[in-house]
Amino acid sequence: MGENNGTRKLAIICSKGSLDMAYPGLVLANAARQAGVEAVLFFTFWGMEIIHKEKQKNLKVSTVGNPSMHMPTVLGGIPGMSTMASSMMKKKIDELDIPPIDEFVEMIHDAGAKLYACRMAADMMDIKEEDLVPQVDGIISAMDFIDISEGAQTIFI
Amino acid sequence: MGENNGTRKLAIICSKGSLDMAYPGLVLANAARQAGVEAVLFFTFWGMEIIHKEKQKNLKVSTVGNPSMHMPTVLGGIPGMSTMASSMMKKKIDELDIPPIDEFVEMIHDAGAKLYACRMAADMMDIKEEDLVPQVDGIISAMDFIDISEGAQTIFI
Amino acid sequence: MGENNGTRKLAIICSKGSLDMAYPGLVLANAARQAGVEAVLFFTFWGMEIIHKEKQKNLKVSTVGNPSMHMPTVLGGIPGMSTMASSMMKKKIDELDIPPIDEFVEMIHDAGAKLYACRMAADMMDIKEEDLVPQVDGIISAMDFIDISEGAQTIFI
Repeated sequence: MGENNGTRKLAIICSKGSLDMAYPGLVLANAARQAGVEAVLFFTFWGMEIIHKEKQKNLKVSTVGNPSMHMPTVLGGIPGMSTMASSMMKKKIDELDIPPIDEFVEMIHDAGAKLYACRMAADMMDIKEEDLVPQVDGIISAMDFIDISEGAQTIFI
Repeated sequence: MGENNGTRKLAIICSKGSLDMAYPGLVLANAARQAGVEAVLFFTFWGMEIIHKEKQKNLKVSTVGNPSMHMPTVLGGIPGMSTMASSMMKKKIDELDIPPIDEFVEMIHDAGAKLYACRMAADMMDIKEEDLVPQVDGIISAMDFIDISEGAQTIFI
Repeated sequence: MGENNGTRKLAIICSKGSLDMAYPGLVLANAARQAGVEAVLFFTFWGMEIIHKEKQKNLKVSTVGNPSMHMPTVLGGIPGMSTMASSMMKKKIDELDIPPIDEFVEMIHDAGAKLYACRMAADMMDIKEEDLVPQVDGIISAMDFIDISEGAQTIFI
């Protein structure tokens, strides 16, 4: 742990729990593994939901506050809209043969990516190891992450 | 592509379509080029709007959900507010002689930055190459990005 | 400045002013310093509030637009909700013995992290050096940041 043996490594911090910000980390980790690059994912804050047994299937697109959605934000604020945008995105994702979040997490784990949850975030949110999917390799501290990410290209999502 | 010849390189993933999150990537890419550092930008998800012919002139500041705006979010949710915050920001940007988004994209391209759109995001949003500004060097996959960003300092915005 | 003498370095760009996105940068910088890794923080856009004398004590959790909060966004849009979520988070943070933002900024500065504010953001927001906490080592340009972050692992929050 922490040794940089010259192998290329990608360390991705996943801090967001929206569908649109969950995919980028998974897609990059997957592409890295396909290219023979080591991939480490560190889930923290809202990103914990990506590896949470009950929550990972219910991620939604973030519409409110995203001016890119080109909806008046008042509409974006209606509870049903995020759900609607989410089903549209899920449909598109399905058409493109991109796996849903839970399968994608399994897939990158099987491809050799390492998945860690943040200790501080787990403590703040009262999340236990048994609440997380079995692909998670452990709950680690920020200092452990600093150690693990030595020599890596780091990305914060 | 993918060879790391020892030159310093900055690879920036632009995933947001708000005015306040479009500038940081452009400013960093520009500063990198001024300093003789290679710059590669990879536009994905909402960030596609920054290089979209019709949309790049209409980016707005993200007000709702940004507690930094110091407006009650109910006000932030009124359609006109994002537009108002956006004109205020655009006015300030203009006063500081910072180019608008479309000119900034041209400027960093002319300075030698490479601009790529994400294939998966393009497919999800039904965006074709002809919808994008001519400064875009191509639509590439996440694996191509992994290849191109070898040896780079990577930033995800 | 800009010389890469082989020491490991972490350069963190803090662009968000919400409580939940202020902590990750501070926690990572602190962990880096504990591990003997150089840490440089560059505050820009909404992130300026983290080092702003009057504003750093009043950061709030971003609820609206964060589908992870599992509140209908209409509720998230009620002014009091962000405040309520913020007090809950602050209570949790206090229970876990994590210092409040102002003390955390002092702590990482005392641990040897370098803190810089972004010139362009300062100009856009009419923020002067005297508006910032004394731990800030200076207001610098994006080009200075490119120089300072040479050889660093870079993170954009």
